[in-house]
Amino acid sequence: MELDHIGIAVPQLEAALPLWRATGAKIGSVETVASQGVRVQFLDTGHSKTELLEPIDDNSPIARFLASGKRGVHHVAYRVDNLDARLAELRAEGVPLIHDEPVPGSRGTRIAFLHPKGTGGVLLELIEYPESAADAPHRKESR
Amino acid sequence: MELDHIGIAVPQLEAALPLWRATGAKIGSVETVASQGVRVQFLDTGHSKTELLEPIDDNSPIARFLASGKRGVHHVAYRVDNLDARLAELRAEGVPLIHDEPVPGSRGTRIAFLHPKGTGGVLLELIEYPESAADAPHRKESR
Repeated sequence: MELDHIGIAVPQLEAALPLWRATGAKIGSVETVASQGVRVQFLDTGHSKTELLEPIDDNSPIARFLASGKRGVHHVAYRVDNLDARLAELRAEGVPLIHDEPVPGSRGTRIAFLHPKGTGGVLLELIEYPESAADAPHRKESR
Repeated sequence: MELDHIGIAVPQLEAALPLWRATGAKIGSVETVASQGVRVQFLDTGHSKTELLEPIDDNSPIARFLASGKRGVHHVAYRVDNLDARLAELRAEGVPLIHDEPVPGSRGTRIAFLHPKGTGGVLLELIEYPESAADAPHRKESR
């Protein structure tokens, strides 16, 4: 299992950038994910990415997160090799899941979110990439 | 700049482990950091690590974080090549710093924390490793 990315909720992307530029982060592209009601600013922070998430819809999860007074890290995502097996193990442990079965993520991935009440307050996302772990060159090097 | 690790506050390390085992995380060693009043459970989650932080002292930052009702991600740490230059840039941007100058971290590192009020609520740590970025084999591969 590898840390894939962290998602940080911000009220407004452009206002957040001077800080990240000053830290030396490589500023990547911006993408609108209408289905999630967010604009995403990607930061290239090595193997594990950082995503800044701006709500563009008052009913989006990020808008509700910010409206409830929460700030900072919204979710943490890990890559796994076999998401079905992982979810079965988590169910057997009695860990509450938001997604009992994998749902489609971006770029052909399958994802599932665990409920924060079972993770000590972290909104955890598990991601399975379409290529198998053994075939993916960017993952080989860390084995 | 690369994501080095995230630190997650938990009331008790052992109680947190079944979840992480079920996700497939490699469970690493446990270390007591008396100066910070914490026991740390390291999880090997690829290039960017995950640390579970249990308070062993009621006055530790982690104890205060949990006592205030907060849960989940306590801090996010990024590796930088030249911490002094980064702090100068951040000061020039008016970003509030917890450490105006680098302080010693573990294993010969130099670290500095940024204040959450300047980072949208994320407690950000910058880490400079003793080896230079260009010489470190584990960092070369991502350039």
